[in-house]
Amino acid sequence: MDDPSEDEVADHRRGPRRRGDALIVAIFEATLAELAEVGYAELTMERVASRARASKGSLYRRWSSRAELVVDALEHERPHHREVPDTGNIRQDLLSFLGSLMSMHDSPSGEATHGLMAEVIRHPELMREVRLRFIDPTIAQVLDRLRRGVVRGEVRPSALTYRIASLGPALLRQHYLLYGAPIPESVVIEIVDEVLMPLVAV
Amino acid sequence: MDDPSEDEVADHRRGPRRRGDALIVAIFEATLAELAEVGYAELTMERVASRARASKGSLYRRWSSRAELVVDALEHERPHHREVPDTGNIRQDLLSFLGSLMSMHDSPSGEATHGLMAEVIRHPELMREVRLRFIDPTIAQVLDRLRRGVVRGEVRPSALTYRIASLGPALLRQHYLLYGAPIPESVVIEIVDEVLMPLVAV
Repeated sequence: MDDPSEDEVADHRRGPRRRGDALIVAIFEATLAELAEVGYAELTMERVASRARASKGSLYRRWSSRAELVVDALEHERPHHREVPDTGNIRQDLLSFLGSLMSMHDSPSGEATHGLMAEVIRHPELMREVRLRFIDPTIAQVLDRLRRGVVRGEVRPSALTYRIASLGPALLRQHYLLYGAPIPESVVIEIVDEVLMPLVAV
Repeated sequence: MDDPSEDEVADHRRGPRRRGDALIVAIFEATLAELAEVGYAELTMERVASRARASKGSLYRRWSSRAELVVDALEHERPHHREVPDTGNIRQDLLSFLGSLMSMHDSPSGEATHGLMAEVIRHPELMREVRLRFIDPTIAQVLDRLRRGVVRGEVRPSALTYRIASLGPALLRQHYLLYGAPIPESVVIEIVDEVLMPLVAV
């Protein structure tokens, strides 16, 4: 779209024109700053707009709720998803996948995600977004690895369930909830060898 | 102890004398009310003392930190632990034990406990108390049931680990975190039949 947008007009009021990506990045940064400063309960589209020097309309045009905005902002900040390599061995695949989740828990974006864990308990609409955007895709990635294990004859086909695929990430989150970060590597090995492998191995 | 205590003196200032249990119940109720009203972050011994019309000294004499006070107050409010009967069958034992945890999640004291789940993420000293007082005893109860299963020849002795005993309660907490209460009974059945029984059964 080439027609001058409301964003530009709005931005023009108080600074150099920003379009598209630059504006979106400013909005994400304002969202994360508000999240850190006042928390989700107090975060409003108005406050974010004002902090990002953008119009409220430019926010509402892109995000229909603050829950969607917050989840997008967090995703923006996450390290780009490193494609965890297919090692050709289900135990190694699980170790390296959970290992990458473990490092996420111990990163700055992990801290923002944990702040969110506290908020979802009180805000069901945010819980739903977090599930759709962060939890379900992670479970899909585990299922994908299990599926390849079935093809290689390492994994029981009956282990391809949502419940079993969700176990590893759920247990890492629980560990974080009860013991904080960093999560020791021994915890990942224990989860894989004491829980996952006995459940999935042929 | 029969000597007039500072508690009585303190109480005397603004109301009828209270001693022992009555004072403690008043302090617990003030703690839970503060927790609901201002949250753990803002809760102080001073505020609780003032709300309970007790002296600060009478609180500090019994609880060395607000984390201990909060956990005691929550335990006071919990329904008295119903002894879940030994059914003589490990699957039934696990179903009824997790079933009783599931109902806790859906009770008023469950709500207070969930509020705490949000707070422990930000307050490690509270996290430690919650682990010692609520999480570890629950895991010990599961281990106890698994042990009886081993004696009956239903459970593999190698399944008697902290990690395996912690799975059921951890997965219920995760479900609560991601989907809220009430937890459907089908979730308990799925956890027992898809995860626990395959791991523990001989």
